[in-house]
Amino acid sequence: MSDLLANFQTLWAQIAPIGLRRDGGYDRFAWTETDRALREWFGRAAAERELAVEQDRNGNLWAWWGHDPTRAGPPDGAIATGSHLDSVPSGGAYDGALGVVSAFLALDELRTRRERPAKPLAVVDFAEEEGARFGVACLGSRLSTGTMDPDRARSLRDVEGTSLAEAMHAGGADPGAIGADDDRTARLEAFVELHVEQGRGLGATGSAVGVATGIWPHGRWRLRFDGEANHAGTARLDDRRDPMLPFASTVAAARDAARAHRGLATVGRAAVQPNATNAVAASVDAWLDARAPDGAALEAIVSDVHAVATSAAREHGVELAVAEESRTAGVTLDRALRSRVVDALGGLPELATGAGHDAGILAAKLPTAMLFVRNPTGVSHSPEEHASAEDCAEGVRALARVLDELVWG
Amino acid sequence: MSDLLANFQTLWAQIAPIGLRRDGGYDRFAWTETDRALREWFGRAAAERELAVEQDRNGNLWAWWGHDPTRAGPPDGAIATGSHLDSVPSGGAYDGALGVVSAFLALDELRTRRERPAKPLAVVDFAEEEGARFGVACLGSRLSTGTMDPDRARSLRDVEGTSLAEAMHAGGADPGAIGADDDRTARLEAFVELHVEQGRGLGATGSAVGVATGIWPHGRWRLRFDGEANHAGTARLDDRRDPMLPFASTVAAARDAARAHRGLATVGRAAVQPNATNAVAASVDAWLDARAPDGAALEAIVSDVHAVATSAAREHGVELAVAEESRTAGVTLDRALRSRVVDALGGLPELATGAGHDAGILAAKLPTAMLFVRNPTGVSHSPEEHASAEDCAEGVRALARVLDELVWG
Repeated sequence: MSDLLANFQTLWAQIAPIGLRRDGGYDRFAWTETDRALREWFGRAAAERELAVEQDRNGNLWAWWGHDPTRAGPPDGAIATGSHLDSVPSGGAYDGALGVVSAFLALDELRTRRERPAKPLAVVDFAEEEGARFGVACLGSRLSTGTMDPDRARSLRDVEGTSLAEAMHAGGADPGAIGADDDRTARLEAFVELHVEQGRGLGATGSAVGVATGIWPHGRWRLRFDGEANHAGTARLDDRRDPMLPFASTVAAARDAARAHRGLATVGRAAVQPNATNAVAASVDAWLDARAPDGAALEAIVSDVHAVATSAAREHGVELAVAEESRTAGVTLDRALRSRVVDALGGLPELATGAGHDAGILAAKLPTAMLFVRNPTGVSHSPEEHASAEDCAEGVRALARVLDELVWG
Repeated sequence: MSDLLANFQTLWAQIAPIGLRRDGGYDRFAWTETDRALREWFGRAAAERELAVEQDRNGNLWAWWGHDPTRAGPPDGAIATGSHLDSVPSGGAYDGALGVVSAFLALDELRTRRERPAKPLAVVDFAEEEGARFGVACLGSRLSTGTMDPDRARSLRDVEGTSLAEAMHAGGADPGAIGADDDRTARLEAFVELHVEQGRGLGATGSAVGVATGIWPHGRWRLRFDGEANHAGTARLDDRRDPMLPFASTVAAARDAARAHRGLATVGRAAVQPNATNAVAASVDAWLDARAPDGAALEAIVSDVHAVATSAAREHGVELAVAEESRTAGVTLDRALRSRVVDALGGLPELATGAGHDAGILAAKLPTAMLFVRNPTGVSHSPEEHASAEDCAEGVRALARVLDELVWG
């Protein structure tokens, strides 16, 4: 076994028990006791490497090589790498954590052949990337880049009614300090995020590691079907205005439209009223998540689904109201940086992703790049999410080569 | 305006405010404060008519003409008429209440021409017919006829965790006394229930009143679709095991099967896990309510739905488990009694219903009959449920004629 593989397994075993549920999934939510344990793990990993740790104004953690944050503010021309340690409910072990673990191990690789970095190099853990507790994805990087209003952020509440401000205060951070951190982001030269792949795009290429080209445009739409409550045992079929039927047509249409326009469309959330076995439903709310390689394809998917929903609703005498809850433009990652990354790795598959990431948020302020590590089943946000230790070691090796090029190249 | 129409409107106006919600629907649940107000209304209506009121061991109310329950037990050869005063959540004004109001008014009609009844005559209000609070429909009549175990009944709980025993105790009734009441049901000669129609069967006949032939067999099935949670933004379509898709096919299949076999089939209840906008669902539970004119047609509907669900689940790599939650045989109401009723009314449309009623439960112990009053839209279990005052008065007139035949005929 190579040293790198053994090193990966050792560091991975240290973080693996934190937030582990009985069903094999992970609950790692921002500013909880589990989050505190993850931050302590980050501090220990940094201390073992004599890296100076700093928590920025938005709760993101930075472990520095070649910079002392206790003596000076963020340095000019630094290179950063990392990801996040939080998870979705019952999430997988790799989404996020793999990027932070790999960052520490890539530094170890570099330090076997380099005494000190030509530019300051940081391992970063961004806070609340999944938005699992406060509902806004990439909260830490959005605050840092100024794309999230601090007042709005402070008043975000979790399902138990605790605000972000209260949760940060309980976690020993100052919620009054959150907000745009231009002094830090503007001085970074580049950010590289390694992440487990969340599909099977790499599987077909035979490569354990790939390079991201960008993030698909995506959005969320709410479709409200308003029918009429009725007695399931007596109302004649022709007298019904049953919203469940156009809802069912819409679920099928989302799949058809995604296939036709080579994107993704999912109805994974629904709310039925009154939701009683012996009652024709009065209403069904459905949420459509749609993503596509470009804005035109996204528009085509949503338009197809809307057309089927409208026609099926009319057929059943049901009212339809559609609201766009969010829409995010696509991100093309910095082409120059990507070329350097691909060249440093001697050519690797390049692929886009439908998922949002901190690297996508930071891309508005500085050049960013992403590496993906193969996930054989493609399953993510689930206990089944997986990458082999060998592939993870391959990812560390690739990340070290990229950092070597960016810091010393 | 005829006296009968005015009398109907007067008595109807007395009960109309009880349990009325702001949205125009009714919440009238067993053993609540609203139920107490309904029981008080029943007591006042009986007192105004000098009828002696009795609450039986199962919480059902009896107002007697020609019998004194304080001096003797249930009389031999009595005739009873009535329905129930409870409702589904946000139910209509007529389902149940119309039968009790009409029973008092039919007695008034008889007393304009009869001094005393040839047989004891009772107006009945059966407890918890809808099962809206404790989950078992026709609870009062099921207990009386011995088709519901008293121990099981006492331990039924509402959504807040209150047991039937606790709720009865709080309502001043003795839960220790509940159970089969053969002494009462075996001595009844006949029971006639008037009810608002819950479909539009009468609409086509031009008649305001019809006679029930029986109650369709019906049942409830739970279909569990187990797929695999995944990231909606990254999992390739071909890699998904999305349970929402076979669920959607099943909803459509239920409608198709109901039409093919001339019955009713409804999916009005569903539960999605984890029910997140950006996650492919891990599982969907769906409940099928099916009813048909005969057992063979019911079987055919369920079999068709099952076949489509199985095939769609297989197509999407989803596991399907089907459980029968309940199945109730059809009831053919007593033919001899029905003939007497139809003859007394000079011939009226006869029709079956898909809904359960106390008359269907009591049919196992004594001859029962039902009259339906026209509901122009057919909507029921909804604030939109309606019958015109003129049709209701016509119903009272028909019920009085039937009781005259049964008591003096």
